[in-house]
Amino acid sequence: MASADQPSFTSRVPEGDDRERPVCDTCGFIDYQNPKVVVGSVASWDGRVLLCRRAIEPRRGFWTLPAGYLELNEATADGALREAWEEARAELEIERLLAVYTILRLSQVQLIYRARLVRPEVSPGPETLECGLYAWDEIPWQEIAFPSVHWALGHWRSTLGDDGFAPFANPPGETGRMERPQGL
Amino acid sequence: MASADQPSFTSRVPEGDDRERPVCDTCGFIDYQNPKVVVGSVASWDGRVLLCRRAIEPRRGFWTLPAGYLELNEATADGALREAWEEARAELEIERLLAVYTILRLSQVQLIYRARLVRPEVSPGPETLECGLYAWDEIPWQEIAFPSVHWALGHWRSTLGDDGFAPFANPPGETGRMERPQGL
Ligand SMILES: [Zn+2]
Ligand SMILES: [Zn+2]
Repeated sequence: MASADQPSFTSRVPEGDDRERPVCDTCGFIDYQNPKVVVGSVASWDGRVLLCRRAIEPRRGFWTLPAGYLELNEATADGALREAWEEARAELEIERLLAVYTILRLSQVQLIYRARLVRPEVSPGPETLECGLYAWDEIPWQEIAFPSVHWALGHWRSTLGDDGFAPFANPPGETGRMERPQGL
Repeated sequence: MASADQPSFTSRVPEGDDRERPVCDTCGFIDYQNPKVVVGSVASWDGRVLLCRRAIEPRRGFWTLPAGYLELNEATADGALREAWEEARAELEIERLLAVYTILRLSQVQLIYRARLVRPEVSPGPETLECGLYAWDEIPWQEIAFPSVHWALGHWRSTLGDDGFAPFANPPGETGRMERPQGL
C-alpha cells in the first residue's frame, strides 16, 4: 500500500531504458538510483592520525576517519575539508588524493585524501563521541568501524615519504563486506 | 499537475532533515539527490587518443572521450572500461587515475583514467556517430563537446613520460560551465 509516509516502488524497465529501475506505484516517478560519493581524509599531525569515535549508527562507538557524503554542488576536496570540520572541528590542508575505493555492497565511491592538520587542536562535532590524534601503535585497531578505514590507514602509511604514488584502490579481492576479517 | 508521466515535486525540508529536498506532491516520496559519478578515460595507442563523436544529446555531433555514469555496484575502473567498450568497442588497459573533476552545475564527479588501448581497432557503439584515434594536432579542437574533455586532454598530455603525477582537479577557476571560453 502506498501512502504519503511510505511510497511503494516496483522494479521494472521504464520505456526507452535497458534495465530495471524502481518505479513508484502511485505516481510513476522513476528512481534512478546512482552510486553515492563519500569524501574523507587521513589527516595527520607530526605522524599522528586524526580518528573519530562515531556517535551515530552504523557502528556507533567505533573509530573512523572524518568522512561523509559529498553534497550537491560541492567539489570533492572541499567536501573532505567540510567533513573534517563537522566531525572533529579540524582544519586541514589537502595534500593529495590517497585512494578511490568502491564499496560494492553500498554502491559507494569513496575518495580519501591525504591531508595535514593546520593545527593539532581538534574537538568532537555532533556526530562524534570523541576524537584525537593517534600514533600508529596507539590506533585502536580492534575497534575500527569499517574495512575501508583499515585500508586507508595502511595505504596512508605506505606513502609516507613518497610523493609519487598513484591513488590506491581496494586491496585485491576486498569489496568492503563487513564479514571479512579486517586485518591489515 | 502530477500524473504518471510527470510527477510533480516541491522543495521542502523533510522532518528530521536540515535542508530542502524535492518531495513528491502526490505520494510524499523524498528525492535525496546526490552528486553523480562519471567514469571515463583518455585512452591512447602510439600517441594517438581515442575520441568519439556523440550520437546523442547533449552536444550531438561534438567530440568527447569515452565516459558515462557509473552503474550501481560497479567499481570505477570497471566502469571506465565498460564505457570505452559501449561507445567505441575499444578494449583498454587502465594505467592510472588521471583526474577528478567536479562539474558543479551538474553535481557531477568525473573520474578520468589514463589508459592504453590493447589494440587499435575501434568502431562506434549505439551512442557514437564515429570514433577514431587522433594525433594531438589532428584533434578537432573546435568541436569538443565539453570543457572537461579539454581539461582531460591537456592534463593527459602533461603526464606523458611522467608516472609520478597526482590526479588533476579542475583548472583554477573552472567549474565546467559551457559558457566559458574553452581554450586550453
Ligand atoms: Zn510516487
Ligand atoms: Zn510521487
